[in-house]
Amino acid sequence: MVDPDKATDARVVGKELAKRGAVVVCGGLGGVMEAASRGAKEAGGTTIGILPGTEKTDANPAIDYKIVTGMGHARNVIIVQSADVVIALPGGPGTLSEVALSLKMGKRVIGLGAWEDISGVIGAKTPEEAVQIALDSIS
Amino acid sequence: MVDPDKATDARVVGKELAKRGAVVVCGGLGGVMEAASRGAKEAGGTTIGILPGTEKTDANPAIDYKIVTGMGHARNVIIVQSADVVIALPGGPGTLSEVALSLKMGKRVIGLGAWEDISGVIGAKTPEEAVQIALDSIS
Amino acid sequence: MVDPDKATDARVVGKELAKRGAVVVCGGLGGVMEAASRGAKEAGGTTIGILPGTEKTDANPAIDYKIVTGMGHARNVIIVQSADVVIALPGGPGTLSEVALSLKMGKRVIGLGAWEDISGVIGAKTPEEAVQIALDSIS
Amino acid sequence: MVDPDKATDARVVGKELAKRGAVVVCGGLGGVMEAASRGAKEAGGTTIGILPGTEKTDANPAIDYKIVTGMGHARNVIIVQSADVVIALPGGPGTLSEVALSLKMGKRVIGLGAWEDISGVIGAKTPEEAVQIALDSIS
Repeated sequence: MVDPDKATDARVVGKELAKRGAVVVCGGLGGVMEAASRGAKEAGGTTIGILPGTEKTDANPAIDYKIVTGMGHARNVIIVQSADVVIALPGGPGTLSEVALSLKMGKRVIGLGAWEDISGVIGAKTPEEAVQIALDSIS
Repeated sequence: MVDPDKATDARVVGKELAKRGAVVVCGGLGGVMEAASRGAKEAGGTTIGILPGTEKTDANPAIDYKIVTGMGHARNVIIVQSADVVIALPGGPGTLSEVALSLKMGKRVIGLGAWEDISGVIGAKTPEEAVQIALDSIS
Repeated sequence: MVDPDKATDARVVGKELAKRGAVVVCGGLGGVMEAASRGAKEAGGTTIGILPGTEKTDANPAIDYKIVTGMGHARNVIIVQSADVVIALPGGPGTLSEVALSLKMGKRVIGLGAWEDISGVIGAKTPEEAVQIALDSIS
Repeated sequence: MVDPDKATDARVVGKELAKRGAVVVCGGLGGVMEAASRGAKEAGGTTIGILPGTEKTDANPAIDYKIVTGMGHARNVIIVQSADVVIALPGGPGTLSEVALSLKMGKRVIGLGAWEDISGVIGAKTPEEAVQIALDSIS
């Protein structure tokens, strides 16, 4: 189960990104990924899910385009590499690996209430602020 | 330089797929990939490019969504695995690897004027026929 | 079940490679891969298995070094890319994908009683001849 | 340039691992990776380099077996997945991604003078202690 506050934050991030015309790329599965995707769809946005497994049906229902990698954790590399800018919500080591890979690739990473102690991550206090910083950084 | 006949075929394949509501997934670069993508866009369709390199700018201008794998030839696996059905045009060993991977994954492969000698590939004589067979097989 | 003649050929290929000091790199699983690995070990050679799954225990007992990719079919790319020269035995579409990827990467491919109809593949009639051609090409 | 103290630590880690019969798997390039590999070879050990690029010649001279992935950062996943236990030295975001991936995969991670603040990482004060903890955890 994903924490309700975190799910709400993810949903607002997705919605705000979509409102401003950004495409939401994520891991395509449930939890925070699904919340962000649902938010984006509520605002009429577009979502891409980079799936770790070999089945399209693994994707959550709010994913428009399903990229089926069959590459397990290596799909995290593709998520980050396909992104213009990365917003990280609180999470476990999988999310941490994406934050680290983003920094390694020189991508801007915004940590929403998380990861600010990692050198290079830009902290944001609200989903709206996270999206603002993210989109400002690539415009 | 891509052969003009092949480019025309690719463009018609892209166009027919888009007309019937299919998303075109390809390797995202030039030549046949670009021709198919352009065809799809001419018919108002959607295109996804699974790129081998690490730069979004490697994509041809007719790609809507750029998946940046940074995984070289391994991106062929992702193209095939993300497809519901595969249409292969005449090509070199890169295309042959995709045909083989499709068969290995149990995906239907339609060879447009090519690859029909490989067991499991379904031959088609025209782009329209290729698209017809492809979409019939997944409906 | 792997065909007994093919298993014998694979075993002799492995043995001859090992006798001449070559390291055997393969997919690490059963069948032809295991036969080649066993042959190499019988001659005191070294074997590397590039595994598709996430478990070391997937490897056959004749593998010395287990590379656990968790990348499914994409591990075929790594097998070929790590090889100096490729010897292909009769097989299905998985093997064909490796033959094609080898050609795409410009690696020499020797087909032992198979694949000679593919442009660029060098045919060999016996395991000994295949190994001879392979090692001559990289010396 | 790699920090001399860190290089010395890496070399001792490699040497101690080799003395106790462990194979050293690393990224195969220079700096800390080369120092650890050299240490292992000084003690008569075996080294495997999982390379990000497409050329065997990218490997440092102390690598015995070169796995050529051509998959860029995704090779970090393979390094970790192929390891029984992970020892992390001080480093940048690339190393952090490996630490995170290890934790995600449920592998034991020993941080040598680094990463102990990450939940799940076991701190070690000396190279010898790091190797001791590592090998105890898999025996």
